[in-house]
Amino acid sequence: MLDSMASSCGEWLKGNGPDSDIVMSSRIRLARNLADYPFIKRCTDIDRASIESTVREKLKTGKEFKDQTFINVAELDNLDRQFLVERQLISRELADAEGARAVAIDGLERMSLMVNEEDHLRIQVMKSGFDLQAAWDQINQVDDRIEEQLNYAFHKDLGYLTACPTNVGTGMRVSVLVHLPALVITKHIEKVFRTFQRINLVVRGLYGEGSQAMGDFYQVSNQITLGKSEEELIKQVGDVVPVLINYERKARDFLISGENQHNLFDQVSRAYGTLQNAQQISSEETMYLLSQVRMGVNLGLIGDLEIPTINKLFIHTQPAHLQKLRRNELDTMERNIERANYLKQHLKSDLSDDAEMN
Amino acid sequence: MLDSMASSCGEWLKGNGPDSDIVMSSRIRLARNLADYPFIKRCTDIDRASIESTVREKLKTGKEFKDQTFINVAELDNLDRQFLVERQLISRELADAEGARAVAIDGLERMSLMVNEEDHLRIQVMKSGFDLQAAWDQINQVDDRIEEQLNYAFHKDLGYLTACPTNVGTGMRVSVLVHLPALVITKHIEKVFRTFQRINLVVRGLYGEGSQAMGDFYQVSNQITLGKSEEELIKQVGDVVPVLINYERKARDFLISGENQHNLFDQVSRAYGTLQNAQQISSEETMYLLSQVRMGVNLGLIGDLEIPTINKLFIHTQPAHLQKLRRNELDTMERNIERANYLKQHLKSDLSDDAEMN
Repeated sequence: MLDSMASSCGEWLKGNGPDSDIVMSSRIRLARNLADYPFIKRCTDIDRASIESTVREKLKTGKEFKDQTFINVAELDNLDRQFLVERQLISRELADAEGARAVAIDGLERMSLMVNEEDHLRIQVMKSGFDLQAAWDQINQVDDRIEEQLNYAFHKDLGYLTACPTNVGTGMRVSVLVHLPALVITKHIEKVFRTFQRINLVVRGLYGEGSQAMGDFYQVSNQITLGKSEEELIKQVGDVVPVLINYERKARDFLISGENQHNLFDQVSRAYGTLQNAQQISSEETMYLLSQVRMGVNLGLIGDLEIPTINKLFIHTQPAHLQKLRRNELDTMERNIERANYLKQHLKSDLSDDAEMN
Repeated sequence: MLDSMASSCGEWLKGNGPDSDIVMSSRIRLARNLADYPFIKRCTDIDRASIESTVREKLKTGKEFKDQTFINVAELDNLDRQFLVERQLISRELADAEGARAVAIDGLERMSLMVNEEDHLRIQVMKSGFDLQAAWDQINQVDDRIEEQLNYAFHKDLGYLTACPTNVGTGMRVSVLVHLPALVITKHIEKVFRTFQRINLVVRGLYGEGSQAMGDFYQVSNQITLGKSEEELIKQVGDVVPVLINYERKARDFLISGENQHNLFDQVSRAYGTLQNAQQISSEETMYLLSQVRMGVNLGLIGDLEIPTINKLFIHTQPAHLQKLRRNELDTMERNIERANYLKQHLKSDLSDDAEMN
């Protein structure tokens, strides 16, 4: 399954959801634990194996899970684990953990279910664009079906019990992945984020490194789950994202108005030209240039390229993806050459690329 | 005539002469003065006008000059004078001079004859590639024909008399324009030039500014003319150019060998991509990138582009050329946009460009 995934991509990258010029994806995850086992840190190897097999067996029976493939993460090699991390289907924590652990995913990557991460179960649903309600409807239903099969650790006053106190209550994290290149260029991004922190929202780069996110992607999510209902948490994030979308749109309007527009058009076109012509290129530079091209396409500055193609390139030009495609381990320099070839091939003719995506 | 020249180019840019991967052109100029007039600095306005009309009238009769068009430089506007400087048909000195002055040029720009520059006459012949003998054969014949019509200032011991003592004797300057990007990249250029200076050869950038020549073009020429025959001067420059060609070829070999080749290929491809995609671009950046692309084509790293196209772009992307093409005065920013459009248009399909050149 992983091999065929290397050339496909998840439904949430198709860029057809609401406001998907700015919002890449809406994502909700629930942390759940089984009442009959200690929390992961206290689990023996036998406990972990038992949790893994219990979840696997129980889920087989539900129709919600018939499309899910159960992948034994412990049996995967480093490259395959890294591949699933890049794909945003498992966390780096699950990849690096020890003992029995698994993930269940469907062919369209709409849902992933991690077993034996920080909690016994981490259920995640992803939607294209800004669509928290659809994500919530789906994950709520999935959670109900699982609860029919498994005995969740639940306290009548506290709610769902979780390994880390910050997740106790709903066990829910609501995340919206936003693309904010214009706020980065106009240097307004830091100010916006300081404001968000004051209202208990977390903002971090896509790869959680530093304040300049890779490819200008930022994840906005709730900080605490306790004392609020699921609907309130969704509303908290959901209310603020339109404000952010508005800020980014205004920054883009500024960049394409007056004298600025020549600079922006030039910057975007050169980025596109470099991606099409480089013979070796790092992951960082690729993200940086793809970000500008993505904005350029959304602003109508580049005509012959589609958003799904760019979204896919963000994912597929990562190290493990390139190595899976080549079915070979590659060192940094080999990857930089392979990445440049991959970009050249996929930016040459958008039509052939679209055909491949469907 | 100047308007039609804006879209054509001189024969010496066709890149079909010997060693034209490295040698852009071979050029010989002769400084001559009329015995019946004082040197230019001592001329009255009437003297200058008289020299100009005398030369024009006398040359009409010779068959060597039937293809030459006589252009009254004093009557040209700034833009047209700048245009002829960019075209390397007149010197900046002639453009900026005062009073009656002229230039005679032929449609293929093989020869130019400046009247009332530093000397009464400056005859120049240009050939594609490394071909000093052909340049000498032609200019020698032209000089003989002029001498049949006009009474040159000549001293039996000193030779031809000129306004500046450095030109006395043969009045000849032999110049070879070489493209040395690999010696620049490998930082050997300064060392090579110091060696040349020790043997009385002048090396300067194409535009005579600083040590990093625009587009990595350097002009190698003799420093003194006195006490040597024409053949000796040609031999002096002619002997050293093959050494220079050899240095540059070795530097290129180094750059396309081993690990280096990935970097070079990447650098050249990105340069090509930027030239094709920029929406605004300065003259300096254009020269810098065209230089890399020119080397790339010569090394077989770029397949769909011809040397004459690149040679032409070096000339045609200069400020006055762009303004002549648009038949409009353009400020710096407008020129940068126009230059980018011109490059895009001429680098898109090489076939259409070739058709235009012939």
